[in-house]
Amino acid sequence: MSFLAAASTNINPGLKAMGYGLSAIGPGIGVGIVFGQGVNAIARQPELTSTIRTNMLLGFAFSEALALIGLVAPFIYTS
Amino acid sequence: MSFLAAASTNINPGLKAMGYGLSAIGPGIGVGIVFGQGVNAIARQPELTSTIRTNMLLGFAFSEALALIGLVAPFIYTS
Amino acid sequence: MSFLAAASTNINPGLKAMGYGLSAIGPGIGVGIVFGQGVNAIARQPELTSTIRTNMLLGFAFSEALALIGLVAPFIYTS
Amino acid sequence: MSFLAAASTNINPGLKAMGYGLSAIGPGIGVGIVFGQGVNAIARQPELTSTIRTNMLLGFAFSEALALIGLVAPFIYTS
Amino acid sequence: MSFLAAASTNINPGLKAMGYGLSAIGPGIGVGIVFGQGVNAIARQPELTSTIRTNMLLGFAFSEALALIGLVAPFIYTS
Repeated sequence: MSFLAAASTNINPGLKAMGYGLSAIGPGIGVGIVFGQGVNAIARQPELTSTIRTNMLLGFAFSEALALIGLVAPFIYTS
Repeated sequence: MSFLAAASTNINPGLKAMGYGLSAIGPGIGVGIVFGQGVNAIARQPELTSTIRTNMLLGFAFSEALALIGLVAPFIYTS
Repeated sequence: MSFLAAASTNINPGLKAMGYGLSAIGPGIGVGIVFGQGVNAIARQPELTSTIRTNMLLGFAFSEALALIGLVAPFIYTS
Repeated sequence: MSFLAAASTNINPGLKAMGYGLSAIGPGIGVGIVFGQGVNAIARQPELTSTIRTNMLLGFAFSEALALIGLVAPFIYTS
Repeated sequence: MSFLAAASTNINPGLKAMGYGLSAIGPGIGVGIVFGQGVNAIARQPELTSTIRTNMLLGFAFSEALALIGLVAPFIYTS
């Protein structure tokens, strides 16, 4: 039994979800630009399709990584 | 029984909805870029339609995934 | 019975409306890019109108889906 | 009967107005892209004006709908 | 009957002004894109000036409407 309980809610879960959301804005746009320009490059030089796709996937991986880091980042910040 | 209960509202549901909203900004733009550039690539090289569409769908999947991760992310962060 | 009730307002409805608003930013731009680039592609290759329109509507559906998920997402997050 | 009522203001109306404002960002840009690219497409292929305008209005309707959903969305979220 | 009422300030007017401000971001950019691309289209096909201007004003009206709805939206949300 507590006589004076000033119980404030823990809003960390909500703020962490917003943190991931913010980190997904950039990669979401970036991945779109990589593949959008990539298919244009394939249309221009069809015989280079495999080389272009390799580089597209390289750019995709580096951009997507930022969002996935944002997914695990809240577990890093514990205090 | 508490004599002094300063009950603050739990705003986690609202913050989580904002978290998904933020994570949907990037993919929404990115998917548009992929398909917008894709139809331009098809118009330039109509005989490559199947190759271009395969790469478009690849880029679409990787970009859309970020928003779908954002949909389930709030269930990961529990504290 | 509480002698001291500091009742704070429930702002979840407002935050959820903001959550949908955020999730509508990306698709709003993305759909515009899909159709904007699409009519340019049609102008470049008028005889491919049906193929281009099919891919446009494919891209439109995947992008718009993110906003519609954002409309129902607040009902998923209950705590 | 409460002896000490610290009544905080209901800020839901303001947050809902911000929710609409956020949902109008994307379509505002998207509609601009649709018509901007559309008049370019008309300038490139004037004899396709009717086909292009049909697709422009299709894209406009799908993009604008997201903002109008944002106008009524706050009435959906009640808790 | 309350002996001690700590009334917090009503910040709804400020939040509503922010709501309009947010809703003006998109149309502000969108209208710029419409007229920017429009004058380019006129420069490419000067003999189509009247057709292009009609479509420009159509796109301008649909995009601007979103900001004007944002101006009156705060009067809709009362709770």
